[in-house]
Amino acid sequence: MNTYRYPKSRELFARAAKVIPGGVYGHLGPAESCFIPVEAFPMFGDRAEGAHFWDVDGNRFIDYMCAYGPNILGYNDPEVDAAALAALKKGNCTTSPPSLLIDFAEEMVDTVAMADWAFFAKNGGDATSFALMIARAATGRDKAILVKGGYHGVAPWTQKKGQPGITNADVSNNLYVDWNDIAAVERLVSEHRGQIAVFMATPYSHPVFTDSELPKPGYWAAIRKICDDNGIVLAIDDVRCGFRLDMAGSDHYFGFKADLMCFCKAIANGYNVSAVCGIDALKDAASSIMYTGSYWLSAMPLAAGLACVRKMRRIDAARVTQSIGKELTEGLVVAGKAHGFDLRVSGVPSMWYMRIADDDSLLLHQEWVAECVMRGVYFTNHHNLFINTAISKEDIALSLEVADEAFAIVRGRHPKA
Amino acid sequence: MNTYRYPKSRELFARAAKVIPGGVYGHLGPAESCFIPVEAFPMFGDRAEGAHFWDVDGNRFIDYMCAYGPNILGYNDPEVDAAALAALKKGNCTTSPPSLLIDFAEEMVDTVAMADWAFFAKNGGDATSFALMIARAATGRDKAILVKGGYHGVAPWTQKKGQPGITNADVSNNLYVDWNDIAAVERLVSEHRGQIAVFMATPYSHPVFTDSELPKPGYWAAIRKICDDNGIVLAIDDVRCGFRLDMAGSDHYFGFKADLMCFCKAIANGYNVSAVCGIDALKDAASSIMYTGSYWLSAMPLAAGLACVRKMRRIDAARVTQSIGKELTEGLVVAGKAHGFDLRVSGVPSMWYMRIADDDSLLLHQEWVAECVMRGVYFTNHHNLFINTAISKEDIALSLEVADEAFAIVRGRHPKA
Repeated sequence: MNTYRYPKSRELFARAAKVIPGGVYGHLGPAESCFIPVEAFPMFGDRAEGAHFWDVDGNRFIDYMCAYGPNILGYNDPEVDAAALAALKKGNCTTSPPSLLIDFAEEMVDTVAMADWAFFAKNGGDATSFALMIARAATGRDKAILVKGGYHGVAPWTQKKGQPGITNADVSNNLYVDWNDIAAVERLVSEHRGQIAVFMATPYSHPVFTDSELPKPGYWAAIRKICDDNGIVLAIDDVRCGFRLDMAGSDHYFGFKADLMCFCKAIANGYNVSAVCGIDALKDAASSIMYTGSYWLSAMPLAAGLACVRKMRRIDAARVTQSIGKELTEGLVVAGKAHGFDLRVSGVPSMWYMRIADDDSLLLHQEWVAECVMRGVYFTNHHNLFINTAISKEDIALSLEVADEAFAIVRGRHPKA
Repeated sequence: MNTYRYPKSRELFARAAKVIPGGVYGHLGPAESCFIPVEAFPMFGDRAEGAHFWDVDGNRFIDYMCAYGPNILGYNDPEVDAAALAALKKGNCTTSPPSLLIDFAEEMVDTVAMADWAFFAKNGGDATSFALMIARAATGRDKAILVKGGYHGVAPWTQKKGQPGITNADVSNNLYVDWNDIAAVERLVSEHRGQIAVFMATPYSHPVFTDSELPKPGYWAAIRKICDDNGIVLAIDDVRCGFRLDMAGSDHYFGFKADLMCFCKAIANGYNVSAVCGIDALKDAASSIMYTGSYWLSAMPLAAGLACVRKMRRIDAARVTQSIGKELTEGLVVAGKAHGFDLRVSGVPSMWYMRIADDDSLLLHQEWVAECVMRGVYFTNHHNLFINTAISKEDIALSLEVADEAFAIVRGRHPKA
C-alpha cells in the first residue's frame, strides 16, 4: 500500500505560521501534542463527506476523530443540513430569537432524562462555566470539586495552576480528587463543610496520555448521596460523551441523575451550539445570571441541533456508535495480537482510547498510528477516538486491513525478542 | 398609523418559560432589562432580510439593533451567504482545519492597521478572555485595569463582584478606573508597580443606561504612553465598535496603536466567529496558551468572515454606516425638537446612544421608544443602537415619520407646562 505525502499541507502551514500564533491552534496546535510524529499527519483539510475527509493533498481518510466529536451522523448529513439551510434562508443571527429556540429546548427536555429545562450557548466551555456559576448562585458557595485530569474547556478556572496566562486566583476555588476515589470526596466535603457549590466531572475518566477508566461499581451512587447530604450541586460535563453513551444522557447510562448536564460536540453534527440542561430546583438560579453572547440565539445552529437530536434519537446513535466501535476495536485487538502486540482498548467503544502496552515509552504506539494515518486511517495518539454512524462495514474492513499492515511494518522494525 | 400587537409572541413566550430559564435569555433576557415596557416589543422573530425583520405575528420592523451588532451588511447578504454556503458544502466542522483559516488571518492582518497576526474563536468573550490571558502570559503579571461600566462579555472576570454566580476570586485581579480619567490610571500603575498585565477598554465609553462618551483629546496617547513606560499590554475590546468606526480598527480611528484588538459582531455579518489581532511581540505568548474549542476551526464562519471583511473594505462599511447614522440621528433630533423634546444623541452615529433629556426618570424616553417600536421602527431603551449598510433612504424617511408621530403621541399625553 502506498503511503501518503503532505507537501501542500506543509506549504500551507508555513504560510499559516506567519499570521497565526503557532500556525495552527486548537486540537491541532502544539498545546495538545497528540500529533506525533507530526510528519505522519495532514495539517489542512479540503472537504469531508460521511465518514471520510480529504486533505489538501487529495488524500482520503477514514476519520476516527470526527472533528474531535461533533461529527456523529457523518459529515454533511442531509437531514441536518436541510434543516440548517432552511433556517438560514429565513435569517440566522437576528434581533428577535427564532421560535426554534423553544422547539430545541423542548426536544432536549424530552430527550435528556434529568432535564426540566435547557439553555443554549456556543462552546462546551460556555456550558461548563455556566454550570459552575449556576451552582454558585444556587448555593451561595464558592468552591468546586473537580477530578484530576478532567477537561472542561479552556476558561482560566478549568486550567492548571502555573500554566501560561493562568493566575492563582483563577483556580483558587478548585479542589481536586482522583477519579473513582469516593473517600477523597468525603474528606474534602468534611474539610470544607458548607463551602462546596458543585462536584463537576465527566461521566467517566477520559484524560489524555492515559487509559480511560469507567466508574467503579457504586461510584456515582455514592457521589450522588454525598451531594444530596451536603447541598452540593452535581454537574456532569457530558460535552465529550453526550449522545455516544446514551441518548437520555450519560448519567442515565451509569444509573444516576445529575442536577446539571453540559452538552456540545455531537449535539448538532458540527453546527455551532452547546447546551446546559438542569433540574427545576436550579431554574431560578440559572435565570439570575447574566449570561449571553452575540450569536447565542442564531437560528441555524438551533435548527441543526434540533434535527440532529431528532435523528440521533430515531436511529439511537449512541447504540449504533457503540456497536460500530465494538466491531472495530475488537478487530484492532485481534490484528495486534496476530503480530504479537498487546493493544489495550479502554473507555466506551464509541469513543475508545487505545495504546500498545508492550512499550512504556508510547513510541511503538506512535509508530503504529503513523503508519495507519499515512494509509488513510485517521487515528491520533494519546487521545480518545470517536465513532460516527456513517462508518460502514467496508470502512471497518479497510481500517482493519490497514491496521494489520501497519502492525506488520512496526513488527518488522522491532522484531520480537 | 395602526400599532402592532404581539399575540403569537406572547403565546410562544409562555411556552418558552416552561423549558428555558427566564423564557428568553441573552440580550432579550431580564438581566439586560432594556426592553421597557416589555409589552411594546415582539419576543420572537420569524424572518429577516436586509435592514428589516418580521416577527412571528407578521409585523415588519426597520431594525436599528442589528442583532446587537452582527448585522452590518443587511440580513442575508448574498455575497457573504454565497461564500458561507460554498464552504459548508465542502464540509464545515471537520478534523483538519480548512485553509480558509489562513486566508482569513491574512485578510485581517491586511485590514487591521495594528495586526501582525490573527486568532479566531467563537464569542466576543472568547476574544477578551484570550487577550487577558495573553497579556498575563507575556508580562508574568496578574492584574488588569478596566473601565467602570465597560462590557467585555460574560466570563466571571468581566462581571461585577457580588453578582449571582460570581466569586470574589473571579474579580480579585481587576482594578477599575472611570472613563477618560488619566490620573486614575497613573495612580493605579504607581500603586501596583510591576503588577499590571493589561489595560483593557472599549475604544470609547458606551455603557448601558448612560450617554456614550468619546475619548477626550489626548486620552489614548496618554494611556499608550503609560502602558509603554510600564510594560503594560494595551488591549482594545473592539467587539462592539469594530468596523463601524474604521475598517483599520477603532484604535486607528482614534489615532493610536493597540497591542491586542478583540473583534466579533460585525466581523462576519452574523456568522459565528470572533477574533483577536495582535502585534508580533505578543505572538509567542499567544501560542503558549492552551486555548481551543470544538467549533473554532469550522469552515463556514471563516468563509463568511472573509467575505464580510472583504465586502466591508470594498464599500467602506464604517464610513457608510456613520453616514446613514448621521442622517437618521440628525433627523430624530429635529423631529424631537418640533414637539419640544430634547433628544440627546451621543457616541458615534453608526452606533449611537439616545435619550430624551427632558425627564430624569427615563420614562418619557421609554414611552417614545415604545410608540416607535409598535409602528415598526425597532429601537431599544438605554442601550446603544446599530446601523447597517442596507438601510435605505426610504427606511430613514419612514423612521423619521414614525418618530414624529411617536413624539406627537407622547406630547399629547404629557402637554408642555
